[in-house]
Amino acid sequence: MAQKPSIPKGTRDFGPAEMARRDYIFNTIRGIFKLYGYSPIETPAMENLSTLLGKYGEEGDKLLFKVLNSGDAFSGIDSSLLNNSNALSVKVCEKGLRYDLTVPFARFVVQHQNEIVFPFKRYQIQPVWRADRPQKGRYREFYQCDVDVIGSKSLINELELVQIVDSVFHKLDISVCIKINNRKVLSGISEVIGHPDKLIDITIAIDKIDKIGLDAVKEELTSKGLDEKAINIIEPILNLKGTNIEKLSAMRPILASSEIGTAGLDELETVFELIEKVGIGQEVELDLSLARGLNYYTGAIFEVKAKDAEMGSICGGGRYDDLTGIFGLPDVSGVGISFGADRIYDVLLTLDKFPSGSVGGTKVIFTNLGENEVLYALPVLKSVREAGIVAEIYTEKTKLKKQFDYADKKSIPYMVIVGEDEVKGSCFNLKNLLTGEQQTLAKEQLIEQLQK
Amino acid sequence: MAQKPSIPKGTRDFGPAEMARRDYIFNTIRGIFKLYGYSPIETPAMENLSTLLGKYGEEGDKLLFKVLNSGDAFSGIDSSLLNNSNALSVKVCEKGLRYDLTVPFARFVVQHQNEIVFPFKRYQIQPVWRADRPQKGRYREFYQCDVDVIGSKSLINELELVQIVDSVFHKLDISVCIKINNRKVLSGISEVIGHPDKLIDITIAIDKIDKIGLDAVKEELTSKGLDEKAINIIEPILNLKGTNIEKLSAMRPILASSEIGTAGLDELETVFELIEKVGIGQEVELDLSLARGLNYYTGAIFEVKAKDAEMGSICGGGRYDDLTGIFGLPDVSGVGISFGADRIYDVLLTLDKFPSGSVGGTKVIFTNLGENEVLYALPVLKSVREAGIVAEIYTEKTKLKKQFDYADKKSIPYMVIVGEDEVKGSCFNLKNLLTGEQQTLAKEQLIEQLQK
Repeated sequence: MAQKPSIPKGTRDFGPAEMARRDYIFNTIRGIFKLYGYSPIETPAMENLSTLLGKYGEEGDKLLFKVLNSGDAFSGIDSSLLNNSNALSVKVCEKGLRYDLTVPFARFVVQHQNEIVFPFKRYQIQPVWRADRPQKGRYREFYQCDVDVIGSKSLINELELVQIVDSVFHKLDISVCIKINNRKVLSGISEVIGHPDKLIDITIAIDKIDKIGLDAVKEELTSKGLDEKAINIIEPILNLKGTNIEKLSAMRPILASSEIGTAGLDELETVFELIEKVGIGQEVELDLSLARGLNYYTGAIFEVKAKDAEMGSICGGGRYDDLTGIFGLPDVSGVGISFGADRIYDVLLTLDKFPSGSVGGTKVIFTNLGENEVLYALPVLKSVREAGIVAEIYTEKTKLKKQFDYADKKSIPYMVIVGEDEVKGSCFNLKNLLTGEQQTLAKEQLIEQLQK
Repeated sequence: MAQKPSIPKGTRDFGPAEMARRDYIFNTIRGIFKLYGYSPIETPAMENLSTLLGKYGEEGDKLLFKVLNSGDAFSGIDSSLLNNSNALSVKVCEKGLRYDLTVPFARFVVQHQNEIVFPFKRYQIQPVWRADRPQKGRYREFYQCDVDVIGSKSLINELELVQIVDSVFHKLDISVCIKINNRKVLSGISEVIGHPDKLIDITIAIDKIDKIGLDAVKEELTSKGLDEKAINIIEPILNLKGTNIEKLSAMRPILASSEIGTAGLDELETVFELIEKVGIGQEVELDLSLARGLNYYTGAIFEVKAKDAEMGSICGGGRYDDLTGIFGLPDVSGVGISFGADRIYDVLLTLDKFPSGSVGGTKVIFTNLGENEVLYALPVLKSVREAGIVAEIYTEKTKLKKQFDYADKKSIPYMVIVGEDEVKGSCFNLKNLLTGEQQTLAKEQLIEQLQK
């Protein structure tokens, strides 16, 4: 019996038009990653649950898709376990779907540490799965594009990641603001005010200053439990003005008593100097409100926003000092960023920035007006393809109208009409389907014309 | 606590070198698919179990990887279900991982039938998952590369698929034999001998004739229950000699009384004539022993074997007349083939046919001999990349020996040595790491040299 076909909620099919647009994004990103000497890796969709569990917090554990053991998964299961859903799922599931590309990468590095050349510069473009509640722009299956270097503490890596971001969005013709912060500076701030627990409140306040003004921010900080002394220390931070380098200078006296804070300012200064030295087309901004993944990052923090579209961050990342420690390889520093392909897709669509030629596809279609005509056309079709031209022949003998319709729906720009006359005259009738212009050509001329 | 990292059995990590080789295969196949006017689609890794169950036989159902429902999967489950593993897994799993690309394609076509332009020519290159017992060359996660056209009965499609196979293996420099059969001919044979149940035995016998000889094959057929009359009818089929067209002629009188058999011979004749007309570089052979997926195919059957490597079929497919019927869209004919990327990989490795340049990667690395030198090098490195040259800079300031080691391990052919002298002289020392040759160059000359 026929069933009405559907796919699991939060997942998507991609047809030819979407694929062409997605490939345009992936190929652009991949091309830049390669240009900077990063190499691709791929890891399995399924990881052992022990690799994944506990790496994304309690909430993350719940969002893992678990894969039932193959074979007789439930045999020997005690019925008392039915009251303990968690314990039961651990018993019958030993594998889970990849939740991100970072943990599998850490696992990969540790597992293959003897085959890897360090510093290891890798990129990885693969789907990940999360059992999130699906909503607009949030999917249960989506691609991540990660680029990381592991085994190097050099800030040249931070520079190169900023250059990669700059190049990718330059190529995609999206204006962005690249925001940079440093975890050590945030640690320094919490150190000098003596409120390490209030760090999130402070970064939120810094973020709000432009919208609600200094007084409202101060009020908010008071309500969050910061005393006057602490707020006085923070005030200059809320009021930072000027260039990135000027802002850093203004921070110096504030964090002077904090060793880690000063180290963070040193790092930021070096990164901004390197950026200045090589020149970056996109805007680069020190943003002390940037705090993504606080528990995770230990140095630089990056976030990228499109300037001409309302959209969350389309790219982000940072430096981590002990990613591989959980798998038994401690003290290896790395830094990386991840491009959000789905959001970049939406930005390009909103700004109408997909190149019109990006659907690619067929350049020319040969008609099918009968057996004889097809036999005459086929060897020439072969030569056309050998010249690298994407070409088709209409496979059914049918009314020309229908063949035009097919060409039209597929946006094929040229048609080679092959009728009795052409067979007799050893020629081809090339029609430009956009202008309506027709030319009668010999085989060599035809190929020449199509190669233009 | 550190855990020793591993991945689920039957799955694989791919490092940079394997990725380069795999991309070489995928890009070659993808390039030819595109050239013939086929468009890519992608479907989700997870399908509803109802889409997958019952499509691959009882054995296939067991090999599906099932994904546990998210949330509290086991709540409200009756303990009596614990004795019925199957029923329980159906209750707690509504999704499964894609088992092949054919069923998801059929589901896609039916679900999107109103957006699709028919005949729909699509290709799909994605991983599939099967809970098979892992062994050499058999994995639980592997890529399939499928190309199908649906909504066309024209035998031009069969021709084009043969041309695609021809082109792909020509590009990969693998000599193959393309074997062709037709399901209707096999039906015809079983019709004329009156033993439809013995079809598999007969195709196995045809396959063995060269190895064990006519008498032994006849004996085997007798032991399988075929009477003398049936064997007498089959004997000329076992003894077929000559060209493909000659073989077809010899089959004509044998299948004269079978309408379906004669239709099959007509189809084969047309396909071989079309192939003759366009010219195919690889060997094409009528093989009446070819019976893959008997229940599935309704017309042409294809199989491709590498001639210079011991390996099963590296490509196969055929025509099916009712693939989409299970999802409510009956009577749509399609034909397609699937390339086995893993086996093609092994053949290329065995025959040492991977192009030496295919690892790609970095062409030049700049040394890091100190802060000043790096600041001098970085803008030039940027220009080198802008010229499209894959380039790196060694990120740590360290002994030159270590930097040479890195270049060597990554097979980087050129190094730009930037020391005090170069900074003073506004020049660059380009070293060919294969020949040892060194040149002192200005920036423009350096880029020119590297572009060669």
